Amino acid sequence: MREVFQSELLEVQERLVDISRSVVTILEKATEAFLTNNVSQADQALEISDANEDKALALDELVIKILARQSPVARDLRVLVSALRISASLERMGALACHLASIARYRFPGSAVPDSLRKTFEEMSALDIQLAKKLTEVLQNADVDLARAIQAEDERVDELHRSVFEVVLSDNWKENAMFTVDVTLASRYFERFADHVVDISSKVTYLTTGEWHETE
Amino acid sequence: MREVFQSELLEVQERLVDISRSVVTILEKATEAFLTNNVSQADQALEISDANEDKALALDELVIKILARQSPVARDLRVLVSALRISASLERMGALACHLASIARYRFPGSAVPDSLRKTFEEMSALDIQLAKKLTEVLQNADVDLARAIQAEDERVDELHRSVFEVVLSDNWKENAMFTVDVTLASRYFERFADHVVDISSKVTYLTTGEWHETE
Repeated sequence: MREVFQSELLEVQERLVDISRSVVTILEKATEAFLTNNVSQADQALEISDANEDKALALDELVIKILARQSPVARDLRVLVSALRISASLERMGALACHLASIARYRFPGSAVPDSLRKTFEEMSALDIQLAKKLTEVLQNADVDLARAIQAEDERVDELHRSVFEVVLSDNWKENAMFTVDVTLASRYFERFADHVVDISSKVTYLTTGEWHETE
Repeated sequence: MREVFQSELLEVQERLVDISRSVVTILEKATEAFLTNNVSQADQALEISDANEDKALALDELVIKILARQSPVARDLRVLVSALRISASLERMGALACHLASIARYRFPGSAVPDSLRKTFEEMSALDIQLAKKLTEVLQNADVDLARAIQAEDERVDELHRSVFEVVLSDNWKENAMFTVDVTLASRYFERFADHVVDISSKVTYLTTGEWHETE
């Protein structure tokens, strides 16, 4: 029984890693769509995200089945409850990335990114992609040091998020309301995406070390 | 054992209702802060939200204890897993309301709401408050008809959300970038808040009737 359970837990972990890997792809395509007005990349991001939602639903069903069959307690129970939460967060990350892809679709053939904020959004999207890749590793190896590095990188995303508002609210901002709306929402999506990464990596740290890093 | 379990399930439900009731209060204070530049209401919203987060955490711990002690299966297990998800959604709703309160704090003594969008935001906030109150009833009585009514009302929130962008992106929009940023984010917070209400009421409908209303 214990062996079956261990192999079931392993499957849950592998599926989380797989979903996390898809989230990286969705974000890569979505940010390329956003930064280079590429509609085909946007469409691909939306498609992969649909498939990923189904994967998350299927994972939730698997976790509920394991809970029913194995009646786990203590740490095993917490791992499974965390898996449900992590799956919800990963699904949300895919949706946030898709919002970026949708902005690109709305503005096509125009750009959603004004020149004055191009560098900021390039750094923000590179950071989010890096964070999502590290998260996949954290989920795969329960790498606690990497989870801590993630928390530091998220601070830079928050800084960039605030800097977007500084630029938009400064006297030098001459862009029209459409750009203002787009960059406000996009910046928020990047920031929330990174928040989810921190949140998930905190859960993994907690499960591995019992040490809780408060994220909010 | 079964009796203990039933009374434990009842406690979970009562706690969800209590948290949902606090979310109504947070939103009422936050929207008053937002619509009337009232900093004291904003501060109260933030305070109640902090307490509500603790309540949600305590509820999660209770659910995990019940799962460990009672090893529920079938519908009982799904009710408890849903309780974890509903508690996460309610916490998020409180956080979204607090973002509205924070906008009011940033703009004080000025207003975050331009005259041209005042009516829209008044209707949006009244709708969100009404939705949150109905949600409390749904959680209390598993009222499936009410859950369906919620879905219809959410459509009006989405309509208002879109109308904010129509106004902001029209040639008549003469407000500065600060107003554009504020109304973009505020509208998004109201819309996400209502999404969570729909999401939770769909879960209750599903648990009550087995009928799943796809929300996204």
